[in-house]
Amino acid sequence: MEQRYAIGVDLGGTTVKTGLISESGEIVFQTKLPTLAEQNPEAIISQIKKTIHDALQAARGKHLAGIGIASAGIIENPGGIVKSPPNFKGWESIPLGKEMEKEFGMDVVVDNDANAAAVAESKFGAGKEYPNFLFVIWGTGVGGGIILNNHIYRGQFGGAGEVGHISIDYKGLQCNCGSIGCVEAYVGQKYLSKRTIEKLQHHPESSLHKIVGGNLSALEPIHLSQAAEAGDEFSRNVLLEAGQLLGVAIASVMNMLDLRVTVIGGGVSAVGDFVYNEIIATTKKYVLTPLRPGITVLRAKLGNDAGMLGAAGLVL
Amino acid sequence: MEQRYAIGVDLGGTTVKTGLISESGEIVFQTKLPTLAEQNPEAIISQIKKTIHDALQAARGKHLAGIGIASAGIIENPGGIVKSPPNFKGWESIPLGKEMEKEFGMDVVVDNDANAAAVAESKFGAGKEYPNFLFVIWGTGVGGGIILNNHIYRGQFGGAGEVGHISIDYKGLQCNCGSIGCVEAYVGQKYLSKRTIEKLQHHPESSLHKIVGGNLSALEPIHLSQAAEAGDEFSRNVLLEAGQLLGVAIASVMNMLDLRVTVIGGGVSAVGDFVYNEIIATTKKYVLTPLRPGITVLRAKLGNDAGMLGAAGLVL
Repeated sequence: MEQRYAIGVDLGGTTVKTGLISESGEIVFQTKLPTLAEQNPEAIISQIKKTIHDALQAARGKHLAGIGIASAGIIENPGGIVKSPPNFKGWESIPLGKEMEKEFGMDVVVDNDANAAAVAESKFGAGKEYPNFLFVIWGTGVGGGIILNNHIYRGQFGGAGEVGHISIDYKGLQCNCGSIGCVEAYVGQKYLSKRTIEKLQHHPESSLHKIVGGNLSALEPIHLSQAAEAGDEFSRNVLLEAGQLLGVAIASVMNMLDLRVTVIGGGVSAVGDFVYNEIIATTKKYVLTPLRPGITVLRAKLGNDAGMLGAAGLVL
Repeated sequence: MEQRYAIGVDLGGTTVKTGLISESGEIVFQTKLPTLAEQNPEAIISQIKKTIHDALQAARGKHLAGIGIASAGIIENPGGIVKSPPNFKGWESIPLGKEMEKEFGMDVVVDNDANAAAVAESKFGAGKEYPNFLFVIWGTGVGGGIILNNHIYRGQFGGAGEVGHISIDYKGLQCNCGSIGCVEAYVGQKYLSKRTIEKLQHHPESSLHKIVGGNLSALEPIHLSQAAEAGDEFSRNVLLEAGQLLGVAIASVMNMLDLRVTVIGGGVSAVGDFVYNEIIATTKKYVLTPLRPGITVLRAKLGNDAGMLGAAGLVL
């Protein structure tokens, strides 16, 4: 049978990255442009269209299934309406899907970047062999997507997968979302770095001070991981605790949806294996007994291409 | 169009209750027999068959869609295998669905009692107008079922809906399941009564002492509700706290699955409206902002018939 292709657009705050993707997940063409988020919606939309036109050139003579767009912000489906992507000047609510269908005369599916990355891992990455899994983006915040029966589960209003806002302590830390004890408020990079800096005052022995050259505001989870692997006890404990707390939230999702498998992507997911071992051990401890033997936690495979690949995956 | 009917069997620890149910939820015939759980699986199965034979008599000349069975225990689907229902002597793992299909020559669907009750509320009860909702059984323990797109969501292995084992405090109370901080360990009747009795030692002023005639071991949530409504501050606070904690767990599910609606059944759900108001307020506080306006928490409508009605609903 003839191989099918799709155009995948990763619309981020600084870059629009667009590729022509085969149904086996090969990136056969790729282009990018600055998003121009600081200008206005017309400028942004024009940039998106340019990249798609380029990809269409590359797709000539190929069987094209459609266009998928992974966007920041809240996406309302059906309709592919993109709402208030952070830092997109003047962009409140735009039916990006319809706009692009009009321009290109083919099916366009829009979803948020977490869902797109989940689809990418499901079709081409770490989740390929698992029809049902939880995808977690462990980055600045904590987001996610739910794959059920090989499809993304969006919920009735398109907002499903908010694993970061599961409360793991009803009287715990205040989260920026307004709730209390959200796991994001413990392990999201922003929160984790802030709390680590506070704790570091009491740990002059930690090699982290040296790693960031005394400039604690430059601290990122990768430094914690480096220090931990070089033997810094403080950094190791911070990451172990983060792994435990993420495991607690994952366990609640596994129990609720009868899942066994979690795939973790995002900036912080590059932490060492000892953190994964802790996530797995804690998830097993907090799930119901029948689920324990099957608990599996995997690293995402697709890194920075996940958005673009997943966008294409939405129409493949 | 001709009205369709189904036979619904509620297989409990003491009674097998079987009815002929119309697709509009009318119970046109009903019978029951003791389960004989203390004897052996053959005796139990024979009791089930007897009640179904009676219902088949009542169904003569009617369009029968099939037989549904709501059972205690863990149910493996497909296959309708019933595993270790509590107090069923000698019953380890029996393919009850297949056994009944062989006997009666028609489709038989088996599910656990929480899922069946969720289906009942979805088809005939409080959830009728909501295609997507969380069903919570607030009883001895805390169980539940998830209705998505008007269908029960079972998960890959049939175990979805365990809202009682969402951890609301990762360093909180020990749950009998082995995990920590499960909401069931705070608000399940068994745990709630136990903790209340402990607290009561320090509250000689509470009218609960009088209500249970000094016999604290007889304490049940209905007494708390009665006392609270008669002005007992201690009882009111216990129930308000229970409502809050249940609300925290509900909020995590709403965030995860992008749901807005919860229906609560089970023995404890008869508590006063002030508890529901507290559940609603807390759920709203702990969900993401876009979900808040839609948050709805309703009482289940079908009471003790929910298992039987839902069993029939499984095949209607």
